[in-house]
Amino acid sequence: MFKVEILDQGKFFVLEPTQSLFEVLQQKGLLTEAYCGGKGLCGKCLIQIIEGEVSPPTSFESRHLGEDKIRQGFRLACQIQLQSSVKVRIPHEDTFSLQTAFYGYHQGLIRDLPLRKKRVVVRKPELAEGLSLQEVLEKQLGDSVSVPEWDINYLRVLGSIGSEEAKSFEVLYGREKIWHIAESSQGESGGFLGVAFDLGTTTLACELVDLESGTSLYRGAALNRQASFGADVLSRIEAIQRHPDNLVALQKAAISTMNQLIQEATEKAGRNFRDIFVVSVAGNTVMEHIFWGVSPVSIGVAPYVPVFVRSSVGLGEELGLLVHPKAQVYLFPSCAGYVGGDIVSGLTAFEIEESEETTLYVDIGTNGEIVLVHDGKIWCCGTAAGPAFEGAQIRQGMRATPGAVSSVSFRGGDLIWQTVGGEPPRGICGTGLIDALAMLLENGLLSPTGRLLEAASHPLSERIEEEGGEKVFVLSREPRLVITQKDISQLQLAKAALQAGRTILLKEAGLREEDIQRVVLAGSFGSFINSHSAVKIGLIPPAKRIESVGNACLAGAKEALLSERFRKRCEELARKAQYIELSGRSDFQDVFTHALFFENREYEQFTRLSGNL
Amino acid sequence: MFKVEILDQGKFFVLEPTQSLFEVLQQKGLLTEAYCGGKGLCGKCLIQIIEGEVSPPTSFESRHLGEDKIRQGFRLACQIQLQSSVKVRIPHEDTFSLQTAFYGYHQGLIRDLPLRKKRVVVRKPELAEGLSLQEVLEKQLGDSVSVPEWDINYLRVLGSIGSEEAKSFEVLYGREKIWHIAESSQGESGGFLGVAFDLGTTTLACELVDLESGTSLYRGAALNRQASFGADVLSRIEAIQRHPDNLVALQKAAISTMNQLIQEATEKAGRNFRDIFVVSVAGNTVMEHIFWGVSPVSIGVAPYVPVFVRSSVGLGEELGLLVHPKAQVYLFPSCAGYVGGDIVSGLTAFEIEESEETTLYVDIGTNGEIVLVHDGKIWCCGTAAGPAFEGAQIRQGMRATPGAVSSVSFRGGDLIWQTVGGEPPRGICGTGLIDALAMLLENGLLSPTGRLLEAASHPLSERIEEEGGEKVFVLSREPRLVITQKDISQLQLAKAALQAGRTILLKEAGLREEDIQRVVLAGSFGSFINSHSAVKIGLIPPAKRIESVGNACLAGAKEALLSERFRKRCEELARKAQYIELSGRSDFQDVFTHALFFENREYEQFTRLSGNL
Repeated sequence: MFKVEILDQGKFFVLEPTQSLFEVLQQKGLLTEAYCGGKGLCGKCLIQIIEGEVSPPTSFESRHLGEDKIRQGFRLACQIQLQSSVKVRIPHEDTFSLQTAFYGYHQGLIRDLPLRKKRVVVRKPELAEGLSLQEVLEKQLGDSVSVPEWDINYLRVLGSIGSEEAKSFEVLYGREKIWHIAESSQGESGGFLGVAFDLGTTTLACELVDLESGTSLYRGAALNRQASFGADVLSRIEAIQRHPDNLVALQKAAISTMNQLIQEATEKAGRNFRDIFVVSVAGNTVMEHIFWGVSPVSIGVAPYVPVFVRSSVGLGEELGLLVHPKAQVYLFPSCAGYVGGDIVSGLTAFEIEESEETTLYVDIGTNGEIVLVHDGKIWCCGTAAGPAFEGAQIRQGMRATPGAVSSVSFRGGDLIWQTVGGEPPRGICGTGLIDALAMLLENGLLSPTGRLLEAASHPLSERIEEEGGEKVFVLSREPRLVITQKDISQLQLAKAALQAGRTILLKEAGLREEDIQRVVLAGSFGSFINSHSAVKIGLIPPAKRIESVGNACLAGAKEALLSERFRKRCEELARKAQYIELSGRSDFQDVFTHALFFENREYEQFTRLSGNL
Repeated sequence: MFKVEILDQGKFFVLEPTQSLFEVLQQKGLLTEAYCGGKGLCGKCLIQIIEGEVSPPTSFESRHLGEDKIRQGFRLACQIQLQSSVKVRIPHEDTFSLQTAFYGYHQGLIRDLPLRKKRVVVRKPELAEGLSLQEVLEKQLGDSVSVPEWDINYLRVLGSIGSEEAKSFEVLYGREKIWHIAESSQGESGGFLGVAFDLGTTTLACELVDLESGTSLYRGAALNRQASFGADVLSRIEAIQRHPDNLVALQKAAISTMNQLIQEATEKAGRNFRDIFVVSVAGNTVMEHIFWGVSPVSIGVAPYVPVFVRSSVGLGEELGLLVHPKAQVYLFPSCAGYVGGDIVSGLTAFEIEESEETTLYVDIGTNGEIVLVHDGKIWCCGTAAGPAFEGAQIRQGMRATPGAVSSVSFRGGDLIWQTVGGEPPRGICGTGLIDALAMLLENGLLSPTGRLLEAASHPLSERIEEEGGEKVFVLSREPRLVITQKDISQLQLAKAALQAGRTILLKEAGLREEDIQRVVLAGSFGSFINSHSAVKIGLIPPAKRIESVGNACLAGAKEALLSERFRKRCEELARKAQYIELSGRSDFQDVFTHALFFENREYEQFTRLSGNL
């Protein structure tokens, strides 16, 4: 047993002989950046040994850190074994503001709140009225309220009236349920707030809403603390399969991230978190399972069955959320294991289903979901695209945080790039990678199969270099920023997954790519993407209208705080959408292989021709 | 602080200076017979001081116990103050079997069980089916089941399937709700039992039912341990008003009585209490409030409003019942504060509402409830009749336990009486008192106003004696059993209450006493009553048909275990019945005063005439 002290944070714990340092740091939520799950691949579980003995550096560490850093005591937590008690530092990225795209602030309409709060004076009825207190209270809540079954606890609260003539209660209620009743003193009144969450695999976004006016009070985003268990949903599932306790650890990681956001939101808005009475949460199906504490393992293995897809509600106190203990927590319905509540939320919020145009809705997050809407019918699928666009598995990839190269173009003979926040470049994020690929394609420096070509006549070709036996494209010389041939392959796989997905959906609908009239890009990534570049590399089809709706999921989550009807529409849409499980298709491999090519026009012609055979 | 040791029971406790011995014994459920609430009136909180000093006897004790008993250390717990630590004995009545009337045993029909139990194998669906596990499980429960909202905990249980192909679960469910899900091992199967309760103010009756066959397995009854807080509902309410903690003490007293009955029932039937998954409870409104832990104080003070009247459900484990922790506990709906679930249960069980005859339903328990059914309409009221018929407030009154004089008649010049169980007489119970009164009336020994008359010519007149300045009728000389003039007044008040109640209901319905074609007597008391005597003293009206249905409440409570439709009918009946609050009527005092007279025929003529004026 060795002692571990985390300097600067005042944390201290003891390591059992069976535990690895990485595991414990992970479970304590101290490694928010690491995403490969402790395999030495991502290099993001960086720590600095200040005192104590550990095992010698591994080849993973040499590659990621270099000799200089190792000499300064920097190590990867997943690679070391302790040989004595240690004191360590965990370097953090500078406080960063996530580059997130919110839809415009707007005032919601308070029409049919799913949950209402009211102070009610229960006054004993006249002898002749023959009413119980239960009925007297319900009458005060309005005609639309009819509660078939009362919780005993609330009858007990109501009974506290005893021999008094009248008593004041604070009631939280829906159309068919009393959600909470408390005796209310004259003084206290408090607010009535809701908080909506987009529970992403990588990023959590939240919006604090005043439910009395429908006004948004604050929006914020943070990295999901689950990230240290793996970047994508499959690695999170693996973590749970490896050790069932990880389910609770992952659930807590998400909830602590949510609580951090709630704290931030209420502080900035000058409100009290105890006034939050409604919480809505939309995420992909795996995230929703974990948030509810339900094992998502069955989604990870064939036949990829989710435990639940319908919406459900829970209690704030049971989940440990920093809200009123009796707050209602609403979890969105999903379509299937790989098309979740986040998609349902976004589709419903932007009324995609009602679109008269044949519409392709694409949400590229850590996973890539695609939805095709045609003539009131809905087809959807999930693809394994994603992490590459978030900078994962890309040598100098990073998220869209300050210093990330986010756009690249070649104009007037110059290579021009911009970074998030205009800061000195530190890496490249997804939108920058797509721009760079499109630029390379347009200038003939990339083959249809994705090989970097040294076309001597082009000024950009001098930037194609050899590095460690691999071709790289040099985006910047000082500091040196490169896109490697392997990076390009990763992006190619990701775009092929998305492209193949939409091809299959079109096949199911009996439509062709040209039939798509409108493309709707959801998610932050979709907002910052250069649609010209995205079309060029085949990530999205060329359509007359291409729009970005920003964080559509959060927009829907907010609606779910405000409208009972909206929740109903979500449930209906989720049941109506036809889910296509790609792995179950015999034609998928073929379609995918073709989608790997960059010259999509030629490929389209090819499929059209072969379809005519 | 004095120590108190209860001999023979191995109990031991310390008395705080602020506590009285009576209070503590009461709260510990050790004084099940006492019913006056510690006022020295009932004489039933008898204890024997074996060691230690207490305050000198009060006049109440002298009257109840006599010098001999006091010399032996017998005292009334409510009258003494400790002057040292003591050792006491609490004499108990011999184990007694309550004289209760059950309806005939019959096999219930299993048609629409409100709650079902099923072992379900959840097998993962084919890839193409696109079902969640939630849906796979529901399909197995049958077409009639549709669950709008799942409890998160049960989703968690279902998620335990993980990467397995199939898993077996034990599911407890209703048409719209999953009540419980547990992983089931192949071995265990267990039974599926229900227990029905008639939660009376004085007596608790229970029936254990096999829900797989509908068969009754056992029936039993016990005295409600709440009795030491007072004999009637008003004194229980007063106890709670005096000290709010008494609400929980009373609730626990009822539940411990129920648990005693469950233990007895399961032992005798050779079953396991953990196999009880459904519990139904019907009682008067105050009893039901207390059972739920809801303060009944608002029922005790004008305008006599109950907190709730609708049915509701709770969990076995939350109430501390000796059943499966997740058992569903169903509590009957009531009509109003003084017409409770016991009446709703009985009326529904015997389909009184559908009667084509004008019917008067009378339940004489600790309270007396009267229901008038005419042409599909229902009127009901509650009266303060009752305890006198259970032997309370009657000098030598007792419950219908062995040794109680239960019938009295004068035949062939002889006074003939019988006791319960044929045992030597120890007192007189309600049916015996009614018989005696009827006999006295018939033989001209009682005036219309209820005075004992010494009619010299009648052989019974020699039994009218003077005792302590009061006239008494001597029922037996050895042992001496008397009915005092004061006892007669008590019975007169009780019958007047019942008679006035029905007069008011008839007035409401626009009917006359002669219009009543059928009288249904519910409750044990109604079963043993001599209907001729009851008509003679005016307790019930003379009708063509007079039937006893026994414990109708328990019959209905059993139905509620077996039928969803039955529960619905109860709810409808409870809402439909028109409750008449007697205390709110300006004409009540007048009607009541007239009802005090015994010559009901004359009184009827009087009212009919006055109605014609």
